[in-house]
Amino acid sequence: MRSYIAVDVGGTQIRAACYLEDNLEPACVQRIATHSPGESPLERLMAAIQSVWPENGPVQAIGVAAPGPLDPYQGVVLSAPNIPGWINLPLQRRLEERFNVKVATGNDANLAALGEWRFGAGQGHHHLIYLTVSTGIGGGVIVDDRLLLGARGLAAELGHVTVMPDGPLCGCGHRGHLEAISSGTAIARWVQQEIAQGRNSSLPAGRALTSKQVAEAARQGDELAIAALARAGTFMGIALAGLLHTFNPSAIIIGGGVSQSGSLFFDPMRAALRDNVMTPDYLKDLVIATAALGDSAGLMGALALAHMSAD
Amino acid sequence: MRSYIAVDVGGTQIRAACYLEDNLEPACVQRIATHSPGESPLERLMAAIQSVWPENGPVQAIGVAAPGPLDPYQGVVLSAPNIPGWINLPLQRRLEERFNVKVATGNDANLAALGEWRFGAGQGHHHLIYLTVSTGIGGGVIVDDRLLLGARGLAAELGHVTVMPDGPLCGCGHRGHLEAISSGTAIARWVQQEIAQGRNSSLPAGRALTSKQVAEAARQGDELAIAALARAGTFMGIALAGLLHTFNPSAIIIGGGVSQSGSLFFDPMRAALRDNVMTPDYLKDLVIATAALGDSAGLMGALALAHMSAD
Repeated sequence: MRSYIAVDVGGTQIRAACYLEDNLEPACVQRIATHSPGESPLERLMAAIQSVWPENGPVQAIGVAAPGPLDPYQGVVLSAPNIPGWINLPLQRRLEERFNVKVATGNDANLAALGEWRFGAGQGHHHLIYLTVSTGIGGGVIVDDRLLLGARGLAAELGHVTVMPDGPLCGCGHRGHLEAISSGTAIARWVQQEIAQGRNSSLPAGRALTSKQVAEAARQGDELAIAALARAGTFMGIALAGLLHTFNPSAIIIGGGVSQSGSLFFDPMRAALRDNVMTPDYLKDLVIATAALGDSAGLMGALALAHMSAD
Repeated sequence: MRSYIAVDVGGTQIRAACYLEDNLEPACVQRIATHSPGESPLERLMAAIQSVWPENGPVQAIGVAAPGPLDPYQGVVLSAPNIPGWINLPLQRRLEERFNVKVATGNDANLAALGEWRFGAGQGHHHLIYLTVSTGIGGGVIVDDRLLLGARGLAAELGHVTVMPDGPLCGCGHRGHLEAISSGTAIARWVQQEIAQGRNSSLPAGRALTSKQVAEAARQGDELAIAALARAGTFMGIALAGLLHTFNPSAIIIGGGVSQSGSLFFDPMRAALRDNVMTPDYLKDLVIATAALGDSAGLMGALALAHMSAD
């Protein structure tokens, strides 16, 4: 029986799974920490793949979702957050040499988009924008049923469009990017700054906050927390209006922890989207949905990639 | 001998040309006003096509570039600036019925991008962004050697990404779009406003200005005019950084009248691009060029479309 292996490599954990034929339920799953004394992350990745290798029948292809910027054409990880040694790592070649099967690699947010399009909330759409809003903001775009990669595979970094020139500093070192305003990190930071400036809140002053705490306080009626989610949602809507004018998709899929904040984030986002879109044509039949695959989106995207590269 | 007809329909003039085989020099060209008493623009368009119809041999296809939003899948003009009657006009069907050959239509800025990619400054690039900066700002994008159209054909409206929330009012009725800051109209308006507020300039107060006059004054050393072009170029660079992160193209082609302003526009644009791009990877081997086809870009794009639709 033909099988496929999908792997999602994160900064803290590696997940590997084996799938038989077109079955979407894995025959075997392995989940291990990315880091362990005495073993490199690449060795651990190889061990995870080996542990799900099927006993019967050939593996058609391995699909790998990796964090950070990556050249999907060459299968080279340019750098990876929380995996310091992975700089210009020829991941595809190393795995092909080790396992002697076809290997395809992709950026994790890109592959989450591919996963949602192939198996999740974006099924049936030919043009789709996917955004994952958690500590950072990652993106993936489907154009004409194909993943948008660009000349060097660095496309769809949708968290890094400027929505506020001279705005807050982004994790990438530049100002006013969407990620610097609407990510979970940015939401928590804004609340802390406002509290430090004397605004009332049920949230504690002078302590590190998470966006999850902010969302919980907002649900309890905390006005500052509500304003923080509204601000993040509003700028997300402004950015999405620009992305609608740019891509004219039929679906927008939002994943990541912040998307769990519900209407406190989504209502201001939808309002800003309506206010900033050029003509209602862009909103006609537009589906706006939360991601369906949760934290399996990257793994399922790696599976889709394995299917496609074996064809 | 096989031939193709290309047409560029503008608000003031219609151009039609006939091309033989793969020849890029037209065998015959017609240029007439779009509006004339007693005749509708559609009748005039049909007459222009008829006037370049070859005497010998079949026409393979007609490609038409039309202004304004257009559904290229159905060949329907949704609306057209300066052609009031063209609302939901089934242009493709009307022309196919009249001439009994295959007709393909496209938005003029999209087809200018296609023209530059196929025959002009973008040849050989698989991923390309085209912007035309004149009274407004239009755009076109090539992704994987294909024109980006989107679900309804409304993609690549790159003049309508927000670069300054609550910024100046755009022609589309929304605030802070790139077109409201970096277009020729916006450049001239900003200079007028600054003069009205008492800033010194060699340009006259209280009179309508054109961006061409501003560019000329800037070349003569007028500081306000220089600042106006620098402001427009800077925001163009900010928007382009976001578009690089979005599309990761290998070429950016800039056309339109404002692109004639030279380094007074392009130097600030390049500086802002460098300042706002996440990593130098996006700039590596990136070609930034002015358009090569001038005001023939739309016509040449219509020819490329005719070639493609006949294949």
